[in-house]
Amino acid sequence: MINKKLLIVSGTHGNELNPIMAVDKFRNLISASQNNYFEFILGNPLACEKGLRYLDKDLNRSFDFEKSLLNHDLYEIKRAQEIVNKYGPDSLKACQIVLDLHTTTSSMGTSIVMYGRRKKDFYLAAILQSKFGLPIYLHEQDSQQTGFLVEAWPCGLVIEIGPVAQNHYDPIIVERFLIILNFLEDLIDGIINKKFILPDEMTVFVHQGSIDYPRDADGNINSLIHPERVMQDWIQIKNGDPLFLDEFNKNINYSSRDEVYPVFIGEAAYKEKKIAMSFTKKEKIICSKDWIKDF
Amino acid sequence: MINKKLLIVSGTHGNELNPIMAVDKFRNLISASQNNYFEFILGNPLACEKGLRYLDKDLNRSFDFEKSLLNHDLYEIKRAQEIVNKYGPDSLKACQIVLDLHTTTSSMGTSIVMYGRRKKDFYLAAILQSKFGLPIYLHEQDSQQTGFLVEAWPCGLVIEIGPVAQNHYDPIIVERFLIILNFLEDLIDGIINKKFILPDEMTVFVHQGSIDYPRDADGNINSLIHPERVMQDWIQIKNGDPLFLDEFNKNINYSSRDEVYPVFIGEAAYKEKKIAMSFTKKEKIICSKDWIKDF
Repeated sequence: MINKKLLIVSGTHGNELNPIMAVDKFRNLISASQNNYFEFILGNPLACEKGLRYLDKDLNRSFDFEKSLLNHDLYEIKRAQEIVNKYGPDSLKACQIVLDLHTTTSSMGTSIVMYGRRKKDFYLAAILQSKFGLPIYLHEQDSQQTGFLVEAWPCGLVIEIGPVAQNHYDPIIVERFLIILNFLEDLIDGIINKKFILPDEMTVFVHQGSIDYPRDADGNINSLIHPERVMQDWIQIKNGDPLFLDEFNKNINYSSRDEVYPVFIGEAAYKEKKIAMSFTKKEKIICSKDWIKDF
Repeated sequence: MINKKLLIVSGTHGNELNPIMAVDKFRNLISASQNNYFEFILGNPLACEKGLRYLDKDLNRSFDFEKSLLNHDLYEIKRAQEIVNKYGPDSLKACQIVLDLHTTTSSMGTSIVMYGRRKKDFYLAAILQSKFGLPIYLHEQDSQQTGFLVEAWPCGLVIEIGPVAQNHYDPIIVERFLIILNFLEDLIDGIINKKFILPDEMTVFVHQGSIDYPRDADGNINSLIHPERVMQDWIQIKNGDPLFLDEFNKNINYSSRDEVYPVFIGEAAYKEKKIAMSFTKKEKIICSKDWIKDF
């Protein structure tokens, strides 16, 4: 049995306050012995101070160190390296698993985001899904979006909860994070002692791509998320369903035979990334006993 | 009969997108003749570009020009002066009335904010309240908060709609603005031709003061808006009702015999102003025929 330590990151985006508050509450309530399971860090302390998502570059796109060589002077690139040096799997305070806590202005509920198809991530996600019934967004094969924090560890997931405004305290969102945090001691203990019985299969929503808002000739957004799509994350759309409402009240519809499930609909922080929503497809994953061995 | 022109301002705060979108839609739908009633401006175009509330100073606290003499180099102070020079009551494109459109992350619904007890403002607010049943927040006697945009015109109100996240498009919020915008031609026409019959009295929620979040010795917020207060703007509280929940899950209660109505509960942008919520008291205002003469 190898000891496992879990790194819990909040404030990776400095305007997402509720995970930080949830972690503070959690740390006040746990005992010293429980504390041995965890390391806690504030991802982007300077951005938190200023109430901004980031200063120079999105920290949660800054962990692709090969890609970052040219940008090594940016605050977030340096901070990413610092975090990995201190808590990465080969560091002094080595953590083998990381949970990165985020909020969204979209109506994602409490959800899991995983990056790529790593066995350990599937194992962790399967446990959380069978415990809490959470939907899982599997982000992969998107060359526009790389360098996520959790990818710098051998195992790691994002917990994403919404809707909540940036810089807005919401005790209901804090409580939702605490439900997850309060389970983590059992989670680590169960992994170390191989206590979990996995379900036969799990459902993931696999990233297919993203679409931007319609824009005018000057590049300004000129259409809104359609009222029928607002707060409809995880809900399937089909050919002809409305996506946007333009400035003349005309519908702009989804046009494809592919039946997809939109997520992160209207997320405020993704406007600058030219993402109005992302499309996913449902996939069943057969759970494998190998996942446990691998840990 | 004097001609009246209405200045409609959106984007006074650069991260409040939905009023801008509503105005764009409104301008696409109205005829040239209707257009003669209105001037339209984007309050803070640079902040809009960057998706920030403001660059140097909150534009909606920058219209107190005597106070601003020392800060005349700040972008928003210059912008405030520029707007008044161009659209103020003595300018070339003179407007006599201004409506400043805002959103809030608090659950204020569609509401009116007025500053001080100007007769013309009461008249305008009374018409809007009797037409739409909107609650009115009367902000006065707060030396911490001065220099509001509408105060630079002889008559002007803020329309404040929420909850919606900053930088988050929400077609439901846009529609709520359009309901107000679509009434404005009738409003101006009714004022010019003295068509409105005022109610006998109107209700306003008068500002009493604001309270900050509880903070630790380092000045960090360590308590949240209590779950029982979340989304309870305009709802009366009394002695002993919970206000905050601290990091140990202990309630921090309201302690006063004064029965007050909190507003702007948890507004994200007011954190930097050290405002967790503001308290108001209900007051009946007798509507006066003089208000009409005064126009």
